[in-house]
Amino acid sequence: MHRYRARVTTADLDAAGIVWYGNFLRFVEAAEDDLLRAGGVARHRIREEHNLVLTRCRFSCTFRSPARPDDELDIALMVTESTDTHVDCDFDIRHVPSERLIAHGSFRSVCLDPSSSSPKQLPPSVRAAYAAASVPESRSR
Amino acid sequence: MHRYRARVTTADLDAAGIVWYGNFLRFVEAAEDDLLRAGGVARHRIREEHNLVLTRCRFSCTFRSPARPDDELDIALMVTESTDTHVDCDFDIRHVPSERLIAHGSFRSVCLDPSSSSPKQLPPSVRAAYAAASVPESRSR
Amino acid sequence: MHRYRARVTTADLDAAGIVWYGNFLRFVEAAEDDLLRAGGVARHRIREEHNLVLTRCRFSCTFRSPARPDDELDIALMVTESTDTHVDCDFDIRHVPSERLIAHGSFRSVCLDPSSSSPKQLPPSVRAAYAAASVPESRSR
Amino acid sequence: MHRYRARVTTADLDAAGIVWYGNFLRFVEAAEDDLLRAGGVARHRIREEHNLVLTRCRFSCTFRSPARPDDELDIALMVTESTDTHVDCDFDIRHVPSERLIAHGSFRSVCLDPSSSSPKQLPPSVRAAYAAASVPESRSR
Repeated sequence: MHRYRARVTTADLDAAGIVWYGNFLRFVEAAEDDLLRAGGVARHRIREEHNLVLTRCRFSCTFRSPARPDDELDIALMVTESTDTHVDCDFDIRHVPSERLIAHGSFRSVCLDPSSSSPKQLPPSVRAAYAAASVPESRSR
Repeated sequence: MHRYRARVTTADLDAAGIVWYGNFLRFVEAAEDDLLRAGGVARHRIREEHNLVLTRCRFSCTFRSPARPDDELDIALMVTESTDTHVDCDFDIRHVPSERLIAHGSFRSVCLDPSSSSPKQLPPSVRAAYAAASVPESRSR
Repeated sequence: MHRYRARVTTADLDAAGIVWYGNFLRFVEAAEDDLLRAGGVARHRIREEHNLVLTRCRFSCTFRSPARPDDELDIALMVTESTDTHVDCDFDIRHVPSERLIAHGSFRSVCLDPSSSSPKQLPPSVRAAYAAASVPESRSR
Repeated sequence: MHRYRARVTTADLDAAGIVWYGNFLRFVEAAEDDLLRAGGVARHRIREEHNLVLTRCRFSCTFRSPARPDDELDIALMVTESTDTHVDCDFDIRHVPSERLIAHGSFRSVCLDPSSSSPKQLPPSVRAAYAAASVPESRSR
């Protein structure tokens, strides 16, 4: 499991004064960036170093309760499956400090050849970074 | 089925020069706004007129091929289920004019009481707007 | 002058139910994309065709009145100065059909060498595209 | 002066692999949220507590050098003028730890009556929060 903290900003809000649901993808993306960085991988260098792109091929999310201005969010990523060419990840987003569940879902990241768009092997460094987030962890700190 | 056209702009792109996957939610949202408008419903007036909020409670999407700068997109919404309190909708996003599939998925919109967040009945005008998009249509025009 | 139409969508709104001011930059960017496209220039191909990047080096905007959900916007770009290496542009954004002024401002686009970031000559095709938008036009149609 | 740290995320990037210039407004907005929060003011409660909206009436920015993926940014806000009804603020955005200047500019925030859109007096708590950021500070820590 990999944990990441984010703060809701004014620019994230919709007309109801809560986080626009599409912006939860930004938080999850930032959490995945952070997971990779924690494993020593800079996502933006994967292409130049390996001639590969790491991309999202599916994403699903259920929205359970609103995130409000100034809320601090705890995004937890849990890698559930990892193969040569893709990684599946569950996530949940909770309010800090109440642990109220705001949203949860899953996504799949795949490694592609940038010219042919065919699946390619994940570089070992990337696999290792995700593997570190496949160990469950008690949420309480 | 309700159809909506959108054009990819520079601000939609990611570092790979293709539409950032989170921005597909913007296109789908714009298509749903357009569906409601076509049925005579202004989404932003639902709250003041009915003291209700129309919100997304789940969203899933599979990304099949990239959308590139200046691409014209055809977003098709198909209402698959409609109850007193929610509407389920499938969508696909295709390149114009090639009809190449870029992304497809589904979402559920629900009607909530803004103070209690409990489900409420969809206003008849909103139900009617969605109902008009529950009739299949041949894609070719 | 180059004119471009855009529609406010739900994802553009802020917590006050009006367009978040930062999103006006998206509309102006889309109008500039359209100006270039009208001149036969695909902005995203400038790099591969000329080994140059066309970038914004300054932007200023005054917000005069709110843009609301479903509003149609008319964005007018007027090129005010054009040199070998940069283009200055004024813009205004008006409500359709009332012509109420929503925002106005200016920006400078420059041509840079992508590796050194030093200014480079604008390709003739790009200069010609902007030149076509340096002719004033009566707003009424 | 008020200082705020932000991290560039993948969703902030444009097709050149650097922060899309419009996203700098998100960072500046987050810094202003943080300035207010540091002064005990929740921006989103200003409306319900005072029947006032705090809005941006102008914004200008010069972009000096690119911000790249994973960069940590230091956003400094310096209040330069404060009247009964508006606040002027300069900002700069620097790379951490190099202090390289990425962008600088200014904006004006005004207090408006939400129904008439006429200027209104800033609440004392809001004025005090901004006043705390009108004292210069040496950048070095």
